[in-house]
Amino acid sequence: MNKEIDDLTIDWERSKRQTFPEVVYCQGKTDQQCIEAFKALYKAYPTFMGTRGRSSIYEALKKDMPELVYDETSHILYVQKEKKIVNGDRLITVITAGTSDVPVAEEAAITAELMGNQVDRIYDVGVAGIHRLLDKLNRIRKANVIIVLAGMEGALASVVGGLVNVPVIAVPTSVGYGASFHGLAALLGMLNSCSAGVSVMNIDNGFGAGRLAHTINSRR
Amino acid sequence: MNKEIDDLTIDWERSKRQTFPEVVYCQGKTDQQCIEAFKALYKAYPTFMGTRGRSSIYEALKKDMPELVYDETSHILYVQKEKKIVNGDRLITVITAGTSDVPVAEEAAITAELMGNQVDRIYDVGVAGIHRLLDKLNRIRKANVIIVLAGMEGALASVVGGLVNVPVIAVPTSVGYGASFHGLAALLGMLNSCSAGVSVMNIDNGFGAGRLAHTINSRR
Amino acid sequence: MNKEIDDLTIDWERSKRQTFPEVVYCQGKTDQQCIEAFKALYKAYPTFMGTRGRSSIYEALKKDMPELVYDETSHILYVQKEKKIVNGDRLITVITAGTSDVPVAEEAAITAELMGNQVDRIYDVGVAGIHRLLDKLNRIRKANVIIVLAGMEGALASVVGGLVNVPVIAVPTSVGYGASFHGLAALLGMLNSCSAGVSVMNIDNGFGAGRLAHTINSRR
Amino acid sequence: MNKEIDDLTIDWERSKRQTFPEVVYCQGKTDQQCIEAFKALYKAYPTFMGTRGRSSIYEALKKDMPELVYDETSHILYVQKEKKIVNGDRLITVITAGTSDVPVAEEAAITAELMGNQVDRIYDVGVAGIHRLLDKLNRIRKANVIIVLAGMEGALASVVGGLVNVPVIAVPTSVGYGASFHGLAALLGMLNSCSAGVSVMNIDNGFGAGRLAHTINSRR
Amino acid sequence: MNKEIDDLTIDWERSKRQTFPEVVYCQGKTDQQCIEAFKALYKAYPTFMGTRGRSSIYEALKKDMPELVYDETSHILYVQKEKKIVNGDRLITVITAGTSDVPVAEEAAITAELMGNQVDRIYDVGVAGIHRLLDKLNRIRKANVIIVLAGMEGALASVVGGLVNVPVIAVPTSVGYGASFHGLAALLGMLNSCSAGVSVMNIDNGFGAGRLAHTINSRR
Amino acid sequence: MNKEIDDLTIDWERSKRQTFPEVVYCQGKTDQQCIEAFKALYKAYPTFMGTRGRSSIYEALKKDMPELVYDETSHILYVQKEKKIVNGDRLITVITAGTSDVPVAEEAAITAELMGNQVDRIYDVGVAGIHRLLDKLNRIRKANVIIVLAGMEGALASVVGGLVNVPVIAVPTSVGYGASFHGLAALLGMLNSCSAGVSVMNIDNGFGAGRLAHTINSRR
Amino acid sequence: MNKEIDDLTIDWERSKRQTFPEVVYCQGKTDQQCIEAFKALYKAYPTFMGTRGRSSIYEALKKDMPELVYDETSHILYVQKEKKIVNGDRLITVITAGTSDVPVAEEAAITAELMGNQVDRIYDVGVAGIHRLLDKLNRIRKANVIIVLAGMEGALASVVGGLVNVPVIAVPTSVGYGASFHGLAALLGMLNSCSAGVSVMNIDNGFGAGRLAHTINSRR
Amino acid sequence: MNKEIDDLTIDWERSKRQTFPEVVYCQGKTDQQCIEAFKALYKAYPTFMGTRGRSSIYEALKKDMPELVYDETSHILYVQKEKKIVNGDRLITVITAGTSDVPVAEEAAITAELMGNQVDRIYDVGVAGIHRLLDKLNRIRKANVIIVLAGMEGALASVVGGLVNVPVIAVPTSVGYGASFHGLAALLGMLNSCSAGVSVMNIDNGFGAGRLAHTINSRR
Repeated sequence: MNKEIDDLTIDWERSKRQTFPEVVYCQGKTDQQCIEAFKALYKAYPTFMGTRGRSSIYEALKKDMPELVYDETSHILYVQKEKKIVNGDRLITVITAGTSDVPVAEEAAITAELMGNQVDRIYDVGVAGIHRLLDKLNRIRKANVIIVLAGMEGALASVVGGLVNVPVIAVPTSVGYGASFHGLAALLGMLNSCSAGVSVMNIDNGFGAGRLAHTINSRR
Repeated sequence: MNKEIDDLTIDWERSKRQTFPEVVYCQGKTDQQCIEAFKALYKAYPTFMGTRGRSSIYEALKKDMPELVYDETSHILYVQKEKKIVNGDRLITVITAGTSDVPVAEEAAITAELMGNQVDRIYDVGVAGIHRLLDKLNRIRKANVIIVLAGMEGALASVVGGLVNVPVIAVPTSVGYGASFHGLAALLGMLNSCSAGVSVMNIDNGFGAGRLAHTINSRR
Repeated sequence: MNKEIDDLTIDWERSKRQTFPEVVYCQGKTDQQCIEAFKALYKAYPTFMGTRGRSSIYEALKKDMPELVYDETSHILYVQKEKKIVNGDRLITVITAGTSDVPVAEEAAITAELMGNQVDRIYDVGVAGIHRLLDKLNRIRKANVIIVLAGMEGALASVVGGLVNVPVIAVPTSVGYGASFHGLAALLGMLNSCSAGVSVMNIDNGFGAGRLAHTINSRR
Repeated sequence: MNKEIDDLTIDWERSKRQTFPEVVYCQGKTDQQCIEAFKALYKAYPTFMGTRGRSSIYEALKKDMPELVYDETSHILYVQKEKKIVNGDRLITVITAGTSDVPVAEEAAITAELMGNQVDRIYDVGVAGIHRLLDKLNRIRKANVIIVLAGMEGALASVVGGLVNVPVIAVPTSVGYGASFHGLAALLGMLNSCSAGVSVMNIDNGFGAGRLAHTINSRR
Repeated sequence: MNKEIDDLTIDWERSKRQTFPEVVYCQGKTDQQCIEAFKALYKAYPTFMGTRGRSSIYEALKKDMPELVYDETSHILYVQKEKKIVNGDRLITVITAGTSDVPVAEEAAITAELMGNQVDRIYDVGVAGIHRLLDKLNRIRKANVIIVLAGMEGALASVVGGLVNVPVIAVPTSVGYGASFHGLAALLGMLNSCSAGVSVMNIDNGFGAGRLAHTINSRR
Repeated sequence: MNKEIDDLTIDWERSKRQTFPEVVYCQGKTDQQCIEAFKALYKAYPTFMGTRGRSSIYEALKKDMPELVYDETSHILYVQKEKKIVNGDRLITVITAGTSDVPVAEEAAITAELMGNQVDRIYDVGVAGIHRLLDKLNRIRKANVIIVLAGMEGALASVVGGLVNVPVIAVPTSVGYGASFHGLAALLGMLNSCSAGVSVMNIDNGFGAGRLAHTINSRR
Repeated sequence: MNKEIDDLTIDWERSKRQTFPEVVYCQGKTDQQCIEAFKALYKAYPTFMGTRGRSSIYEALKKDMPELVYDETSHILYVQKEKKIVNGDRLITVITAGTSDVPVAEEAAITAELMGNQVDRIYDVGVAGIHRLLDKLNRIRKANVIIVLAGMEGALASVVGGLVNVPVIAVPTSVGYGASFHGLAALLGMLNSCSAGVSVMNIDNGFGAGRLAHTINSRR
Repeated sequence: MNKEIDDLTIDWERSKRQTFPEVVYCQGKTDQQCIEAFKALYKAYPTFMGTRGRSSIYEALKKDMPELVYDETSHILYVQKEKKIVNGDRLITVITAGTSDVPVAEEAAITAELMGNQVDRIYDVGVAGIHRLLDKLNRIRKANVIIVLAGMEGALASVVGGLVNVPVIAVPTSVGYGASFHGLAALLGMLNSCSAGVSVMNIDNGFGAGRLAHTINSRR
């Protein structure tokens, strides 16, 4: 079997076009494929990241890549040689319904931070106790963009969307059981939100939400 | 073809067992089948009703059954020779997210009223403008049982469920379009409600909700 | 990454509003998050509980929390310093179709008991042998509220609903295989119940059913 | 466009193989295609039938085919020049949950009768009032094969299957609304029946049930 | 927690009514529950069985129950103290599309044999090579009842149904991948079979098929 | 039946909070309900709109509301007494895959225009002929926000998302047939977009997309 | 509203690239849009076609476009000024399971013919009577490419795929009822075909199948 | 239990009919069944293969079958005693959207190579960076048949289909998460492709795609 092509083509062009180097999506790739991708990025960029990482990749790289961090909550692997805030005047607020949504929320928050944004985290304020959310309304209203993460019925996105006048990025999570069908209930709920400023990401796609919030923040 | 059985067997026993005569579900029955069922009920009971009725049945019966009412919003056909409040001390509050949910809400409300309950209607207080709901919180907290009707994402049931300490009967409605899938999104949302006191009826089943609210009210 | 908020906000307010302290849903939380939640509850309340627990949490806590019980059937973790019956005159009857439904049934039953209710358990009386159910009809008719748990086709809820005149809370379980689709068949069956007094919980949501039964029992 | 084949090939062979001439499934065929099929059958057989017919076909044929009957309930079009009972000692019992299931039930019953069987019809005995069914148990136990038709949750098939020791053919009907999803709930319920002797037909497939009951009756 | 009822009620009555003792469905039951059920059956019957068994149950019982057999292909556990053919003149033929369907096929075949039937096995004759099936047509036509098992697209049921004039019990299996959706494709295919004598069991329900074939064979 | 509440509560507060008066969603409301809502808005605002309108509402209002326009493509009813561009420096570009997507695209475009934005329309540039899209790349890259509308497989959103560095709002349309399942295929495709800057609206929700694009444009 | 773009961009480039002018998909386009598209094609090409047409378009064009044909079975509108066979040595054989599949089959057949292919039609040879298919095996084996169209369970594709050694293009049709779910059962069946040479088109996509058969035939 | 038939019937006839010996589908078969099948093939053919293999089969066979290769990427087990190019003038090009699709791509590529075809591999050219694909357009246009593999939204098939004029075989892969639903999103996307020359295989069915590409290449 002659395989005359490389197994992994790093998309160097995209990083120029998109102001941040390509992000390595580790799931479905072998350790070896991930390691090679990270090594190539390390040579070329001061800051880069991979999502859905695992400790075996971190262990294999940490000696040669001392700045590498593996965040166990979000499963993000990243290098950030210098911290740089590019959208300091525009806050991204990340809100979760419950504690179990935090891993996806951290994927969103850390992505946004690595791209140069300030992030405010407001966790565990689901609609079953609406006063928890309302107590933080002044803080929420400081946001330039809001990311809402919720599993189960995903109602938090609609409630937040009705309270503010900024873009709300809704991320359904796979938190729940039974008729949540691994996030489908929250996904459908958010797609049908009666609040007009809400758009939706794939289930558990914290990275995409953080990336989009950064893109909105970068509009000037 | 010899058909030696009757096409429609009225379940006389159930009315004794259930304190209200059997309710005629008109959809899927011919006009003639409905008319015969109503005539049999008229002979035996001072109060009875049918759901998902149509004006042709009403027109055919109104001369011989002068007390017959056809409510065009809820599509309920009923006779109530004398109004009798049996649970006057226990309020059933019917809440809708939007104006389009009102036909199903009225099916619930009128059912509960015909069975002898007091009903408070609070319509068009969906979560996109949460202050509309909160403004009516004192009124809502007077309820002994609450019926919440909502289409689209159905988030209202969770929010109400978190604000009160009484049974909440959630009725998803088929209001919506696209990924509401004719009420499926609201149904899944309500089943996954993060508020513990919420149970769910079939999509658009206002009658069942009114009936169940009456049953809960009748527990003494 | 600066995380200036707490990972877990215990909702102290809700317990006042709802007469029972917030219940810890352990699934999707780390051991550490659960342990901290239980410790906070232990300081404040004589009785509290968590659902979908696991033995590792129990092992970590049992020394410092001698009253802690881990029920292996229902996976409930609870402390009950003193037993208190608040609805002694109103029986909650818990009925299952099969033996495999018992873990979810026990989640419902123990929840109701911890909240102060008397519970009667009638297990393994599925409709394939209807005489098993009918034999217990007098006992069933003593109930003030009934919880029916069934997997597979979930037909038991309709049959019970037709035999009694009290609220029936139907809980589909994920018991079954093939076209049961992890409880979907039972869920749809119960939502379409031809018996009017039946409302439905999420698949395997025994806790919610026990909690709702207690709420109905508490209406006076 | 040269179309050198006939649009409709009557399967003469099958009738020899299957003891009853091919049945014309009218839905999805033009009037003209149905009329030609019936004319060909009329020349060759004393008894034949078509399902899902419509009055326009009947009107076009009745002058030249005086024995043609159009049963408006079942939408069966048939000719039966002489009535012949071939399985007189073996009763097929057709049971429905509600009145709205009768059109599909009649499709089953008339099919079985045209093929030479005795049919007993027991209609409107759904599980919400189980005593209606139990009252007729002696009559039901005379059956050699039972066809059960039910929409909504389809629970009747499981209950009947547990009461008898003969083959039960379950036919889900599209009767219902909301989460019945046009018969899907009943279909899944019947497939998951906890009663072992139950097999299932497609939604609204009364013809197939009648045909299969005849096949079972013909085993000697 | 007072649990005053037994965890498992053996349905002694059913065995009288159905001529074969209740079958233990082991999945979802603990080893202890299964062992107790088998012990009770062992005291009362010369022949009995359990489906979806596992070797741990067998190991625990084999010393005290020397006649116990654990068939590793079908996962049936059974005792048959004496072999008795009750329907010797009526053959049940079990046909599979592929080799991977054999475990479910054996569940059907052994069930039918234990109930006293003669079984002919024709395996691996799927429609992709139709000559394999046609080569065995004479043998197939000796059947009184046929059980067809197929995964993937399940087409074998329709082809067999068109070749014979006896009842065909179709069992979709979960064999396949991707868009087979764990047997859903085969299930839908069989429900929509264009051959009129076909009825359908739940996915992987070999036991039900064997039981039903026995019931049909027992009609006299 | 005493109905002591108004059927329609206009949410005056929201318009203050959201800088544009509440939009009337006409579908599911009676003509009378819509007419009253428009009349109330007409008294209070120089610019307002309703979606999913119909000509009967327009005909009933046009005499008393001479500025009322009914756009037959988008089914928007609106009044705009004076045109005001509030985000003139930030272009919203609306792109469709096909001609059949134009009605939903116009709902988005007109919504954005009424709220004070400049809109560039690029229609019928689906991915089957990728050169059509690439030919317009310079024009597309002038956008501050992009709305992509596509039915069938919805691939256009991913391709556009990969070509630009601004927020892309993807709107699946119900254009298609068969396995498009009324927009589900496009919806799932867009949710799974491999391009990171894409978020998704409900099927056919042009209004929401236009509203969100305006919200993003208003961030300063 | 300034709409500075054309509503319909004819893709002139594609016809050069694909050897046949762009095909107008009439569904979802207004009459006016279709008419303009046909007029543009008429000026530029001797042969062209539109699918899912309707007679109103034909009536509007026939005077100015005398060669226009409207095939009422397939709903194809086409002009073919001169008939040209480009793949005369390679036969495309179109096979249907039933008569109701013929409209989709004709869409495939006429498409292939207009593109210059010879087509053999073999209709109504579904697997319920396998001898009908086998009788035509010699004729089927003359094909270079085969298109199989079937609704219901779609089994015909697998059977044909097992009998030949040429590409089989399977087209599920929406023929059927109940659990055919508008062609979903046939679609899943065909995707799971156990015959290796089978690939699948969208439900009712006769045009795509004819077009692909032509493309395969054109490989030289 | 008398099992008088063989557990596995090797279909010798098919290899004659189809020019390549039957391929062993290892999944769902025991090691022993696979080993016996390979041994039988080894005696009869110089080249043969099995899909979805595992190393335990390879380990058991490698001593007696020295030419056996186990490709760990594609999970193909094969013997190829001599390499033979039968379609050397016709290139099969295999294209993937991402690196994670490579295992399925290799199943397709190696299958095609073993059957005697030349294969060109172009991997990791998904539509999020369309220039990666366009850069390789000249190479892509050398193909006689193209196989496109993509997970997530599967848009690559439509884009490639619009760029070429040869048959495109689309293979959805299960790569993705959340609303990809294990390949369903890609499957639906490909079925709804707006490019006319695209047909679709089952999710992850690389083998079928390679086999079909070979069949198309063999048409002469």
